[in-house]
Amino acid sequence: MPTVGIVMDTDADLQIMKQAAEILEQFNVDYEISIMSAHRSPDRVREYATQAVERGLKVIVAGAGGAAHLPGIIAAMTPLPVIGVPIKKENLDGLDSLYSIVQMPAGVPVATVSINGGRNAGILAAQIVSIFDASVRERIVTYKKNLAEEVAEKGALLEKIGYKEYLSRKEVK
Amino acid sequence: MPTVGIVMDTDADLQIMKQAAEILEQFNVDYEISIMSAHRSPDRVREYATQAVERGLKVIVAGAGGAAHLPGIIAAMTPLPVIGVPIKKENLDGLDSLYSIVQMPAGVPVATVSINGGRNAGILAAQIVSIFDASVRERIVTYKKNLAEEVAEKGALLEKIGYKEYLSRKEVK
Amino acid sequence: MPTVGIVMDTDADLQIMKQAAEILEQFNVDYEISIMSAHRSPDRVREYATQAVERGLKVIVAGAGGAAHLPGIIAAMTPLPVIGVPIKKENLDGLDSLYSIVQMPAGVPVATVSINGGRNAGILAAQIVSIFDASVRERIVTYKKNLAEEVAEKGALLEKIGYKEYLSRKEVK
Amino acid sequence: MPTVGIVMDTDADLQIMKQAAEILEQFNVDYEISIMSAHRSPDRVREYATQAVERGLKVIVAGAGGAAHLPGIIAAMTPLPVIGVPIKKENLDGLDSLYSIVQMPAGVPVATVSINGGRNAGILAAQIVSIFDASVRERIVTYKKNLAEEVAEKGALLEKIGYKEYLSRKEVK
Amino acid sequence: MPTVGIVMDTDADLQIMKQAAEILEQFNVDYEISIMSAHRSPDRVREYATQAVERGLKVIVAGAGGAAHLPGIIAAMTPLPVIGVPIKKENLDGLDSLYSIVQMPAGVPVATVSINGGRNAGILAAQIVSIFDASVRERIVTYKKNLAEEVAEKGALLEKIGYKEYLSRKEVK
Amino acid sequence: MPTVGIVMDTDADLQIMKQAAEILEQFNVDYEISIMSAHRSPDRVREYATQAVERGLKVIVAGAGGAAHLPGIIAAMTPLPVIGVPIKKENLDGLDSLYSIVQMPAGVPVATVSINGGRNAGILAAQIVSIFDASVRERIVTYKKNLAEEVAEKGALLEKIGYKEYLSRKEVK
Amino acid sequence: MPTVGIVMDTDADLQIMKQAAEILEQFNVDYEISIMSAHRSPDRVREYATQAVERGLKVIVAGAGGAAHLPGIIAAMTPLPVIGVPIKKENLDGLDSLYSIVQMPAGVPVATVSINGGRNAGILAAQIVSIFDASVRERIVTYKKNLAEEVAEKGALLEKIGYKEYLSRKEVK
Amino acid sequence: MPTVGIVMDTDADLQIMKQAAEILEQFNVDYEISIMSAHRSPDRVREYATQAVERGLKVIVAGAGGAAHLPGIIAAMTPLPVIGVPIKKENLDGLDSLYSIVQMPAGVPVATVSINGGRNAGILAAQIVSIFDASVRERIVTYKKNLAEEVAEKGALLEKIGYKEYLSRKEVK
Repeated sequence: MPTVGIVMDTDADLQIMKQAAEILEQFNVDYEISIMSAHRSPDRVREYATQAVERGLKVIVAGAGGAAHLPGIIAAMTPLPVIGVPIKKENLDGLDSLYSIVQMPAGVPVATVSINGGRNAGILAAQIVSIFDASVRERIVTYKKNLAEEVAEKGALLEKIGYKEYLSRKEVK
Repeated sequence: MPTVGIVMDTDADLQIMKQAAEILEQFNVDYEISIMSAHRSPDRVREYATQAVERGLKVIVAGAGGAAHLPGIIAAMTPLPVIGVPIKKENLDGLDSLYSIVQMPAGVPVATVSINGGRNAGILAAQIVSIFDASVRERIVTYKKNLAEEVAEKGALLEKIGYKEYLSRKEVK
Repeated sequence: MPTVGIVMDTDADLQIMKQAAEILEQFNVDYEISIMSAHRSPDRVREYATQAVERGLKVIVAGAGGAAHLPGIIAAMTPLPVIGVPIKKENLDGLDSLYSIVQMPAGVPVATVSINGGRNAGILAAQIVSIFDASVRERIVTYKKNLAEEVAEKGALLEKIGYKEYLSRKEVK
Repeated sequence: MPTVGIVMDTDADLQIMKQAAEILEQFNVDYEISIMSAHRSPDRVREYATQAVERGLKVIVAGAGGAAHLPGIIAAMTPLPVIGVPIKKENLDGLDSLYSIVQMPAGVPVATVSINGGRNAGILAAQIVSIFDASVRERIVTYKKNLAEEVAEKGALLEKIGYKEYLSRKEVK
Repeated sequence: MPTVGIVMDTDADLQIMKQAAEILEQFNVDYEISIMSAHRSPDRVREYATQAVERGLKVIVAGAGGAAHLPGIIAAMTPLPVIGVPIKKENLDGLDSLYSIVQMPAGVPVATVSINGGRNAGILAAQIVSIFDASVRERIVTYKKNLAEEVAEKGALLEKIGYKEYLSRKEVK
Repeated sequence: MPTVGIVMDTDADLQIMKQAAEILEQFNVDYEISIMSAHRSPDRVREYATQAVERGLKVIVAGAGGAAHLPGIIAAMTPLPVIGVPIKKENLDGLDSLYSIVQMPAGVPVATVSINGGRNAGILAAQIVSIFDASVRERIVTYKKNLAEEVAEKGALLEKIGYKEYLSRKEVK
Repeated sequence: MPTVGIVMDTDADLQIMKQAAEILEQFNVDYEISIMSAHRSPDRVREYATQAVERGLKVIVAGAGGAAHLPGIIAAMTPLPVIGVPIKKENLDGLDSLYSIVQMPAGVPVATVSINGGRNAGILAAQIVSIFDASVRERIVTYKKNLAEEVAEKGALLEKIGYKEYLSRKEVK
Repeated sequence: MPTVGIVMDTDADLQIMKQAAEILEQFNVDYEISIMSAHRSPDRVREYATQAVERGLKVIVAGAGGAAHLPGIIAAMTPLPVIGVPIKKENLDGLDSLYSIVQMPAGVPVATVSINGGRNAGILAAQIVSIFDASVRERIVTYKKNLAEEVAEKGALLEKIGYKEYLSRKEVK
């Protein structure tokens, strides 16, 4: 049984939400991924949310845009922590999605990440899993070290060759 | 059986939502009024929404604030027209409520009125009812005439006595 | 005589507003469609709004952008329910249109749908018509079922083949 | 016949709109003041706007809040310059009023002043009148000189006595 | 001597501001057009603003973007009516420009038009001029009639041929 | 050793952040609570964040307002999941706090809850703890049941006695 | 001759701007303080800005609200660094002030601090002065140490006595 | 040892931040440039900030986007003046970056410039340096003169040849 469930409102959001899947693969955390809509398939959402605990899921990652109700509606129907990803749609620059997810009423939180933050949702899910899985913890620590090293390398290169040379090399790539 | 169902997320919204009830009373349209929360009592919402048609309701008015999912979730589960009232909460001046209600995805509309627009939600419900109930239509026509006359009277008074006298009389009231 | 009137401020909005027409055709609801501007042809608007009831219209759908006054001005001059579609213009991401339509004063509501929500305006009009037309009600119920099934199929496919394969197939289309 | 017409949507806006009247009195410019609503008394608005030229008005000042259509609707029906005052209502901090007035489509401008800027609307009207009335021009020039002198006096006082003494004197007043 | 002065912060704004010039040409109103920056050439602005009355200008149209100070700074130094055009820059969708122009303090108004509203600024200037120039008034009345007729023709065409044919003809153009 | 660490930027935020403590007490989850500022005491923050894992903490809840850096800076220095609470300050209605916390770059997520959402931060922390602590899970399930029952009771009361009586009883309390 | 000049648009802003003066007194940096308005007394502003260098000022702190042009206009007329304080006025929560100050065009920067950030403006001025005045540097270093210690003390107290006792003691004060 | 340190969160921001370097070269002010992230390499940031004074830096320019903590975190750890550049990222039009940088709490200011204002950050740094370096002062004065002349030339050209010819010449370039 997978540890993390990734769901989204529509397959139009898959380019963002697959980033959660990719990072979980990288951290070696089992996940499942599916599509369900709070507005177009409410029964499917209800079934998924109410069965999540008994099916063995530990964390749910849900992405949605516009009047983005999916994360909140799932959170209403499960005691599991739910991570919400506000997806930017054509208008309002993702602000409608952000407000619809983060401004949950007292009693029913959604752990909201940045607009289009599919990758961060995956990392946050892994961080939660890492509380009781030491091997995931190790991979996260390594991941953070690599982030720091990558920045340090770029910084050292820029210091050494200056911004003109640096930018011209980037263009070559 | 009532024609219009008025529901809200919490009794904190009752001061706004009762305005819908008051105007429906004035237009002589039957209504029922209750409390149910998309996040804290999702089963109750589901029961209400899925049974609305067979119970004989024609229009549903739903008010909610913050990540305001109640109108959209009801709209997801009934073919009836759903009117949404964005309730202003402590932060963000009602904008989170407005976005969460009006920005519904293609396929599942919510007829959104102004922030804290309980009265307008009631009028809109009556306008819908008036399509098949001539007596309600008449009352709406009269209501609109009265609005115009009230403005005309105030305008005539201001023209006649000037703003200083007008304002001093208002203070007296 | 058509049941629904669809009007817009300018033919620049026709790509959005035709979506209302398309869905009404799909639901087999009669409609008429025209152009009139609250600012550039106010007499035409007045004629249309004041004659709507006697001409037999039941619902009016009006789209406009920027300082979007058309829906509100029509609502001022008819007891019929008016559905407003905020059209996104070059600046402010549709927010000026949304505010100008949804924030109507007490007494004169406009049933506002999402920014550029032409399709949802059509569905909402049909939902209103369906109150007194059982055949439209049936088509709406079927439409909602189809929405749910489409989501379920996509969800099942994604679960089965995974996001890499799913995305590559979409690209092929 | 008055030179400037001041109108507003509701007498709730009179505290702001009277500021336009006060400044016109100070500049000795004739005005009339009344109430009319684009949404609740559209016929009255139409009559006023279409007769404004023949009645001899030169400038119209119109204040409104929320979905504030009054200035734009008057501008649609008269060739006179129309000055719009966005009135702040309970929600959205006056932004809905501002957008509804300033974002007029090409062809029909409204000369918009600041939110709740009743006084500035009066000054702007006087500036327009001053183009063909030298005595008003003189009063405006004097008014601007006085503004400058008042600032200079306050500045000199603050420089002389320091902020502690300055603030304590203000409290005394 | 020209009647209207059109100025802008930078020649990057000329595409917008030339629209004011074009409409003034159409209305046969004399104008001059130039570039001056409140921040980069403050002396030039001061000279222009303080000499405007004696040079015979009646109205000034000023366009600027970002922290858009040009219209307000000119208004500070002349009793003439100043029309401000908020120009949209790369960020914030023109909102910074709008706020910097419309929110002038009591005492010094700027007649603000819509974001990028160069054409409307020209029309507003002509409306002001038309108060004392009957031939301009006539041209404005005709202009408004033409706007109404153009809308009526498009509306009639759409009613006659339907949206599919209408859109296909537009594409052909 | 406590399971959850609650920290905040200043004791001005304690009224909000104590709500996280209260709910954790209710769920019987051990916590510690302290004050540290990313800007005024960065060394203290660094010490706390880098030692959190070895000290045995499982989740950190951090509240901050304005340019709210505390949650993100802690997240930068620990592999533990960090929950951020945007605290509303005097200006901008909490939006600056929200953006500063939720918009974290890829690689370093913060689980953001609603503005001033101290209680929800505590519930989310408990939900995370409940993954490996069945007794906390049970208490959360009970908590959610109670939420639903409370809503149901209020709804039933409103249905029974009507809004007038309901509101008068609330005033009595 | 003072090192820092503090100026503001109106004495209504003195409660905020005096905070800059207070902190400069605390850091033992000489300053002068006055009132001048970019819109109501432009000549006074010009005189002040163009003479600032020869009068020996090193830094100018300018506060203004609404369409807040004072800092930018001073920056246009002096090579000195200018610090801008956006003052919150009745509407728009200080956002108009912030945009009008921070969004200066390329070539003429204003060093903007937080909305109503009078104290921070004073500290920033002192930091600039401290580059060439070691005694001010020392006082800043001490100031920052004190900030850290104050936070540490409060944190230690909260850890020791818990939030209930802590809050009850605060109320006593 | 360089006088100004330019740092940024990621090399994605180099196109903006190099503008600070270019202008400092033009003003003949020594600088160094590097990359460090408050979130991905906090130790590197701490080292840089705490050693800046002893390494001889006078001013630090820091650019960051989204939840942009770099400028504030550096300001927390050095008494030097820190200039912040809000970098626009994919969403929210740079507003999240602006808020995260400008809204610093009392005690720890960041001198914020416009969104993507790399060039202005460089000019502001030079203005600060110019307080104690007369040759830089001279270059700034000349720079400002050139800005004014460039505007004057463009203005004169536009006045002479008109907007049609002016625009056609620009297109040729």
